[in-house]
Amino acid sequence: MTDNMRVRDWGVKIGKLEAGEKNSITDIPGIRVGHCDVVFGEGPLEKGTGPARTGVTAIWPASGNVFTSKVPAATHVINGHGKSIGLMQINELGNIETPIMITNTLNVGAVADALIEYLAFKKDWDFSSINPIVAECNDGFLSDILGRHVKKEHVFAALDNATDGPVDSSCSGAGNGMSCYHFKGGIGSASRKLEFDGKTYHVGSLVCSNMGGMHDLRIDGMPVGITLEKERDNTPELGSIIMLLATDAPLDSRQLGRLALRATHGLARTGTASGNGSGDTVYAWSTANRVPSTSETSSIEGERWLDAKISSFFRAAADCTEEAILDSMWTAKTVIGRDGNARYKIPLESVRKALEALNYTFE
Amino acid sequence: MTDNMRVRDWGVKIGKLEAGEKNSITDIPGIRVGHCDVVFGEGPLEKGTGPARTGVTAIWPASGNVFTSKVPAATHVINGHGKSIGLMQINELGNIETPIMITNTLNVGAVADALIEYLAFKKDWDFSSINPIVAECNDGFLSDILGRHVKKEHVFAALDNATDGPVDSSCSGAGNGMSCYHFKGGIGSASRKLEFDGKTYHVGSLVCSNMGGMHDLRIDGMPVGITLEKERDNTPELGSIIMLLATDAPLDSRQLGRLALRATHGLARTGTASGNGSGDTVYAWSTANRVPSTSETSSIEGERWLDAKISSFFRAAADCTEEAILDSMWTAKTVIGRDGNARYKIPLESVRKALEALNYTFE
Amino acid sequence: MTDNMRVRDWGVKIGKLEAGEKNSITDIPGIRVGHCDVVFGEGPLEKGTGPARTGVTAIWPASGNVFTSKVPAATHVINGHGKSIGLMQINELGNIETPIMITNTLNVGAVADALIEYLAFKKDWDFSSINPIVAECNDGFLSDILGRHVKKEHVFAALDNATDGPVDSSCSGAGNGMSCYHFKGGIGSASRKLEFDGKTYHVGSLVCSNMGGMHDLRIDGMPVGITLEKERDNTPELGSIIMLLATDAPLDSRQLGRLALRATHGLARTGTASGNGSGDTVYAWSTANRVPSTSETSSIEGERWLDAKISSFFRAAADCTEEAILDSMWTAKTVIGRDGNARYKIPLESVRKALEALNYTFE
Amino acid sequence: MTDNMRVRDWGVKIGKLEAGEKNSITDIPGIRVGHCDVVFGEGPLEKGTGPARTGVTAIWPASGNVFTSKVPAATHVINGHGKSIGLMQINELGNIETPIMITNTLNVGAVADALIEYLAFKKDWDFSSINPIVAECNDGFLSDILGRHVKKEHVFAALDNATDGPVDSSCSGAGNGMSCYHFKGGIGSASRKLEFDGKTYHVGSLVCSNMGGMHDLRIDGMPVGITLEKERDNTPELGSIIMLLATDAPLDSRQLGRLALRATHGLARTGTASGNGSGDTVYAWSTANRVPSTSETSSIEGERWLDAKISSFFRAAADCTEEAILDSMWTAKTVIGRDGNARYKIPLESVRKALEALNYTFE
Repeated sequence: MTDNMRVRDWGVKIGKLEAGEKNSITDIPGIRVGHCDVVFGEGPLEKGTGPARTGVTAIWPASGNVFTSKVPAATHVINGHGKSIGLMQINELGNIETPIMITNTLNVGAVADALIEYLAFKKDWDFSSINPIVAECNDGFLSDILGRHVKKEHVFAALDNATDGPVDSSCSGAGNGMSCYHFKGGIGSASRKLEFDGKTYHVGSLVCSNMGGMHDLRIDGMPVGITLEKERDNTPELGSIIMLLATDAPLDSRQLGRLALRATHGLARTGTASGNGSGDTVYAWSTANRVPSTSETSSIEGERWLDAKISSFFRAAADCTEEAILDSMWTAKTVIGRDGNARYKIPLESVRKALEALNYTFE
Repeated sequence: MTDNMRVRDWGVKIGKLEAGEKNSITDIPGIRVGHCDVVFGEGPLEKGTGPARTGVTAIWPASGNVFTSKVPAATHVINGHGKSIGLMQINELGNIETPIMITNTLNVGAVADALIEYLAFKKDWDFSSINPIVAECNDGFLSDILGRHVKKEHVFAALDNATDGPVDSSCSGAGNGMSCYHFKGGIGSASRKLEFDGKTYHVGSLVCSNMGGMHDLRIDGMPVGITLEKERDNTPELGSIIMLLATDAPLDSRQLGRLALRATHGLARTGTASGNGSGDTVYAWSTANRVPSTSETSSIEGERWLDAKISSFFRAAADCTEEAILDSMWTAKTVIGRDGNARYKIPLESVRKALEALNYTFE
Repeated sequence: MTDNMRVRDWGVKIGKLEAGEKNSITDIPGIRVGHCDVVFGEGPLEKGTGPARTGVTAIWPASGNVFTSKVPAATHVINGHGKSIGLMQINELGNIETPIMITNTLNVGAVADALIEYLAFKKDWDFSSINPIVAECNDGFLSDILGRHVKKEHVFAALDNATDGPVDSSCSGAGNGMSCYHFKGGIGSASRKLEFDGKTYHVGSLVCSNMGGMHDLRIDGMPVGITLEKERDNTPELGSIIMLLATDAPLDSRQLGRLALRATHGLARTGTASGNGSGDTVYAWSTANRVPSTSETSSIEGERWLDAKISSFFRAAADCTEEAILDSMWTAKTVIGRDGNARYKIPLESVRKALEALNYTFE
Repeated sequence: MTDNMRVRDWGVKIGKLEAGEKNSITDIPGIRVGHCDVVFGEGPLEKGTGPARTGVTAIWPASGNVFTSKVPAATHVINGHGKSIGLMQINELGNIETPIMITNTLNVGAVADALIEYLAFKKDWDFSSINPIVAECNDGFLSDILGRHVKKEHVFAALDNATDGPVDSSCSGAGNGMSCYHFKGGIGSASRKLEFDGKTYHVGSLVCSNMGGMHDLRIDGMPVGITLEKERDNTPELGSIIMLLATDAPLDSRQLGRLALRATHGLARTGTASGNGSGDTVYAWSTANRVPSTSETSSIEGERWLDAKISSFFRAAADCTEEAILDSMWTAKTVIGRDGNARYKIPLESVRKALEALNYTFE
């Protein structure tokens, strides 16, 4: 057992569905994830200067050029105390046409600008209008957020770094400065497999966790947080979680909206009631039934999933989201940020003892 | 020229698109419309007893059993001061599975109940849950609305009477007691043809008009209402209009929602700004890509329309809605209701003079 | 310990907030709840005839005439596979102006019609337009749902029976035929107290539970359902839950919408992922800042709650909803319905053993 | 008569309500508007280099620090083919807490970033999270949009330049590169006065117009566009219009959402049916009932407007929007942009003749 093994390997299995091979959103063919860390400086906050504990994470939602071959998509807003860019057009047209970026709250503008530059000038995608998707959480507890330290080169690096391997640990990219239930949080991922008509489909999740109060934390339903409170100071509850859900099944945008809502169920099971200041936002997409940006015909053929056969996807979405949140804590490491503010790794030994005291069945 | 010729035949052509053969929502194969009038009594209102100037209109949205083979659908609420039943499920599942009924505000419950009885016991459709669609406008100015005089037998009659002929005139069915821009309103319809890839598609509208103040009335943009005010007393502005839009093109529910919104444009062009008390609601559906209630497979093949080729549908939706509102007035006749309250037919000669004074081009 | 003691008295306390005196939605002054059972017949289903295991529940949302003095309100749809009437106008005008009725799915129309008759003719409320609120779940597993056996007299009785005492047990009124996690469900309630600026406010919930699969059931997070599966056959998962949330704090309709969303968190914690067929709908209202139907002035004074002080309400809403769902099972009794279909009371001794095996802390 | 007199002074009066003193959004006390032009280069497009016909417009929504004293607000999306930032939080919290910026589509990110820097470092507003509002239209027909030529200094200048005078002409700020009904468009404004209970309230609009096809253009309902088509080549229809609506009456966010929807009516009356590619977005706010960011109490007193008295505001919103769109064309001047692409000023003499031919009543 290592310090940052994934929660599933550690013995906590969420739900009854089987995980995908990588247990990551990258189990869906074509999806790639990359990070760039922006970490420098120590000591007192100098507004606009540092220290920085931040970064940016890039998710390529499908193979190839997603502008000329868009992915069906939807969003769901649980609590809209957030500053993301790009939701309106996803909702109207039902698709996503760029990589999805996650970063700190005040860096959304700069990252959106850099994403456009990357696609137009580095990738030479041909467009005069494009809808950049940038989501955010607030890492100001650890980082000089007013400095907006994520620059163009970091955005380019995250995009270039992207791979389809298992998603990297919590403190990478956008996760560097994030907190979850008063412990270190950040990026986490999980996936599930579903069988229909002899075919295997996947649902994958990726979260950037930055919400919750320690008291409320539940591990697979078990009230563990309440036993951990003595271990650490309980600073004010922070906010926000970005949740991505993807599938290779041919769900359309309405159905993806239904799927996205079920991230709420996974989130809720970890204990939070989504406080006022939390920007809890979900993006869902499918890699099937790509949407061409131009076409000689006015319609194309495609598969249409039946809502009567969708409930398993809802279950997978809830389970994946719950596990990805835990994954973001299990794979994290302690980070000391500006003004000596600290987010400690969740104390796994204490968690194990708490779960054992509840006769939890490790698997 | 007869007293209730349709507005298009009278010389007002809305927009540049060609109308369908019947210039009615019934130009879309499979759609049928039926009415039942509930008209009795004269003189003073006896609350709960009469007189009645009301009725019910039934729209079969497609051929065959729409429960086992549903139609993709969406709604749009312009001003939700209304009491319709059925919207929530249309929005969630993106389909309609019963005939659509229109009646008076306080009769929605009884009509929904009768519709269920008709489908379960008269048609022997097999279900234990079904989503009846009933929309309404308030005809209380002319009718004893508290009497809820539309009964089961009227609902059955409207459903049984339905035909695919040109939609009947304004004062039929739900239209009996309705007012439009302080003149007699009610049911109106129109349609447009569109060509794509060598195929002809239709957009059709049916409205139940019951909104607007005379001053604001515009005929194809011309400020005619202001010239008519002297002719009639200007009673308080009433509310509500139900607008249906149908197409035989394979738009999905998200796209039908976009289509439904454009009814606003057609409505707005007739002059109203949708006052507080107006229940302005739109239902849109497609007769293509029917949704089976059961299936051995979890997905089926279907056509997917491209949003890049949808703007003409928006234009058709706006134009059809505008024309159907006028149609509801042109095909109306004067009705005297409870307490001697009168809604006069729009004075076509005065309208013609007003339009001529503006050098309007009759076509 | 009796067979139908409430879950809180039995030893399960949800969350850390204190319950109100009655631990019911009726802790909010002015709210009254009444039931009428419609239960008759035994044996095989005769479609349209019986047996009936159904009923209707009436909730008066505030003291006095709520048409002339409306309550600020909002709705939230988790999964809109439902047939409720009244949501559209709540969303537009931000208020509720009638009692809220809960009944079986196919009885919505008849109950809405009876509610209008009651208010217009029995209460002599003066209106020509009104927005009846009727919510539903499907009790067809136990009852002849096509019979729509809830009649006018039952609606009147439920309205007349309403009291401000602790909410009656699960199998009353609309709860008669409902199931929850494959056990007997129905009506449940709970409440919480909150202190602000030296004043005590309440949040209360009332649910009509009719959803979930046994396997998924969680009691205060504990995976109890999975241990109960051997006890009973696992019939197909049913659908739908109606959740009401009320408060005496001056939240406005936007804020009540935020509150309503948190019912999702309470629901999710009981284990379900809200399957495709579930009509999961939330109604929230405040008894403060009543809205007059007529006024000489165009504005009135009122308190405006600050969103920065709203998070405790969200917690209370989630906790109350979770507890009310359990309450609906704890206060239930076994019901045998049509065709001998049975919904058994949740086996409390087995539940206790399962919780003890998990070292659950009874309080 | 000068070349860029406002449309109202030119003789076209929209609706029957009286205009405010400046007939601009700045008639609402506290609102200020500033522009910065970014115009350079001639000749062929060099992607990323120029020529530029663009700019940025800043609207201060109320007096003082709108972060510590926010304005109640709402949005309405007519057609969400747009890339604006900031809507999600407006919808959740019902307020706006920064100036509102308008610019070109691909500059949203950079402008949002600059706005944060201005408020944090130039104004020293104290925050670690803030919701910048940036709206956009696509000026790529005239300008090198991929160059994102609006820089930090331009944003600062627009914010610093803001005044409460009558809103400047069309080709200023964000308006530089915009088109309207195939003529030169951009910024336009208008206002209306309303009397209630002896007090005067205002509704003001500001638009950035960039949509429509010449054929469809209506001037106060009159089909003028169809007569102008011969004058100019009819290039492909462009998209998008940003519409702002403000009032000094105490409407809350729900009511402001209703107000915002009525911009659709004003927009529709000018002739467009909001094509697929149009990002038609509305922002509405009130300068009354400011929302403090911090407070010792959990609620504050405030005026609550009654929906029963809101219809005049809807009329004003529709009329103002319609007039502001025309105003954006009347106050424009011809602009030649990249590749010699030209947007001509609407030919006022031809328009006058067309209106005279229709016996239009100039006022």
